[in-house]
Amino acid sequence: MTSGHVTRIDARAAEAIAIGAGILGTGGGGNPYLGLLMTREMLRRGANISLVDVADVPDEAVVCGIGAMGAPTVGIEKLPRGDEPLAALRALESHAGRRVTHLIAGEVGGANAMQPLIQSAFSGLPAVDGDGMGRAFPELQHCTFSIGGIACTPAAIADCHHNTTVFPRLRDTVTLERFARAVTVQMGARAGYAFPLMSGAEMRRTAVRGSYTLARAIGEAVLTARDRHADPVATILGSTDGTLLFAGRIADVERRLVAGFARGTLRLNGSGQFAGTQAEIAFQNENLIAWTGAGRERVLATVPDLISLVDEQTGDPVTTEMVRFGLRVAVLGMPAPAQLKTAAALAVVGPAAFGYDVPYRALPGVYGGALLLVI
Amino acid sequence: MTSGHVTRIDARAAEAIAIGAGILGTGGGGNPYLGLLMTREMLRRGANISLVDVADVPDEAVVCGIGAMGAPTVGIEKLPRGDEPLAALRALESHAGRRVTHLIAGEVGGANAMQPLIQSAFSGLPAVDGDGMGRAFPELQHCTFSIGGIACTPAAIADCHHNTTVFPRLRDTVTLERFARAVTVQMGARAGYAFPLMSGAEMRRTAVRGSYTLARAIGEAVLTARDRHADPVATILGSTDGTLLFAGRIADVERRLVAGFARGTLRLNGSGQFAGTQAEIAFQNENLIAWTGAGRERVLATVPDLISLVDEQTGDPVTTEMVRFGLRVAVLGMPAPAQLKTAAALAVVGPAAFGYDVPYRALPGVYGGALLLVI
Repeated sequence: MTSGHVTRIDARAAEAIAIGAGILGTGGGGNPYLGLLMTREMLRRGANISLVDVADVPDEAVVCGIGAMGAPTVGIEKLPRGDEPLAALRALESHAGRRVTHLIAGEVGGANAMQPLIQSAFSGLPAVDGDGMGRAFPELQHCTFSIGGIACTPAAIADCHHNTTVFPRLRDTVTLERFARAVTVQMGARAGYAFPLMSGAEMRRTAVRGSYTLARAIGEAVLTARDRHADPVATILGSTDGTLLFAGRIADVERRLVAGFARGTLRLNGSGQFAGTQAEIAFQNENLIAWTGAGRERVLATVPDLISLVDEQTGDPVTTEMVRFGLRVAVLGMPAPAQLKTAAALAVVGPAAFGYDVPYRALPGVYGGALLLVI
Repeated sequence: MTSGHVTRIDARAAEAIAIGAGILGTGGGGNPYLGLLMTREMLRRGANISLVDVADVPDEAVVCGIGAMGAPTVGIEKLPRGDEPLAALRALESHAGRRVTHLIAGEVGGANAMQPLIQSAFSGLPAVDGDGMGRAFPELQHCTFSIGGIACTPAAIADCHHNTTVFPRLRDTVTLERFARAVTVQMGARAGYAFPLMSGAEMRRTAVRGSYTLARAIGEAVLTARDRHADPVATILGSTDGTLLFAGRIADVERRLVAGFARGTLRLNGSGQFAGTQAEIAFQNENLIAWTGAGRERVLATVPDLISLVDEQTGDPVTTEMVRFGLRVAVLGMPAPAQLKTAAALAVVGPAAFGYDVPYRALPGVYGGALLLVI
């Protein structure tokens, strides 16, 4: 399935990526299932979907980030047309007078992981085995492209009627987030986006590398464990530099919608090696911080490191919409990509940026672990 | 001051236009005063501002509508930079790859009347003696360009930081209104707009002609009456095809903010020839319909005809924000421009379009009256 540095995506790979992307979503990012169905259908119709290694994209390539934005709940109730991100990309190309040669995911965590596969199938453009977050985050400015200094404009968004909006010049990605979010609401809370437009060299300097390889490896671990009736959590941990932060039953969930975000906390009563202890996780779409002890005595992990809940039995990701009393889950901690750990990055995606006055102490290991060191 | 079909604007002309535009604002459109101050300052610095007759714009000219959008109250509290519409126009030119040769007001009623003068001063581009409404209306789709079938996109908006947003292709002007309004809110409820981009021939087919000549004539009537201590209402009526619909004291005002619009009704107790009778006016930013009788017995006038309140003593326009108990006002009715009276136009700007189930019965006369027949 791998030829040189180009990975062909078949139905099994797409399924594994969808599962892995769900886990990399760290509770948010939306459900990749609908995108998986679309990818499968495109493959069934003969689409050729391939992923190119970040290192193999030439300097002079024209790379564009893509994804969908809006309310995840709307994404389930109002089926997308499918090619909204490509419509945004075409509007951006037409505005900028440049043709894009490579697609890259804005965000590998959650539903947006499937966008480069789907838009690659629609357009024939290769997608890159990398992304702008290495996980999921709630807003556009949380991407490594912006953190790395790539101009966020020109940017474009499009809806299912191919109504398009282009942002030729905005001050910063926070402004893009506000403006694009406002139009997205008018578009029915669902839009495809295309940004940033960058050279191959700029992409290589800023993108998180190998995030699709990682997503797929995590998903393969889950699928393999299922096939063999093995423990999915152990299998996932064996395929990444992940740590088991906690395991137990969800004892309490407090959730509220604030300014379009699912904010809240969940409490866990430990089981197995964690029996007799408690843990608490705070989330804003994504899980932001995990403590142990009934009174938040000790921080287990914080953003930008990945805090993911998976179902102990199936290994399936458990998103913040799905958490409920009684569910048995494992809390996995995975090291963030290096691009999210710089001082500049921590100012945007560290615990303080989300309102938690604790220092960031990195989990051990590297993003993708041994896996990405080999490729 | 008039040379051929080009009218040079001096400080007196600008003042007259501002007063006339206030009256053509029919209660809404925002206060032209700030724009007048800006125009005066540009003239003081030596700016050359001229208005070209609609008929004199060549077929191959590239004309662009301009104006400001947002909440009028914000427009007073947060002073504009001034060149927001020009920044939008430049973004639109750059996007479309065309240079604009002439500016035209989207709306002659209210504050937007001053925009072509100000942006003409900034850019040196001539402005047209015409506009897209002949009055004020609350939303972008209420313009004669859209009613006449000119595509609303590409369109652009810009804020005081010159953050820009371009709409390359939208389904219709209602969609543009929604999208642009949403971004405008994010811009601090104040943006300059540039749309539509059209040929001279398209503009001539759809624009309301001579609306600046009319605004200026109305304003001159008010200024002259002041100078001569004459009755300003009689002087205004003498310079247009206007009708005195009612005169009296404001007895009651009911006003509420609904979805960003100032909606409400005001009641009047008649005086002079109207003594012993009552009238009621309903508004949504602009005055929409006037009835006489305590129980709305008879319709005096409806949109798209102009229903304007002026102060009986000074002739100054009385906007819906200014109406208050006890104020003595004259209610003027003026015929709408022909472009707003077609079946297609009435579907957008007739009484039913604003929720009033009454037939449109046009006031007698023509927009601008004898004045515009002469020029």
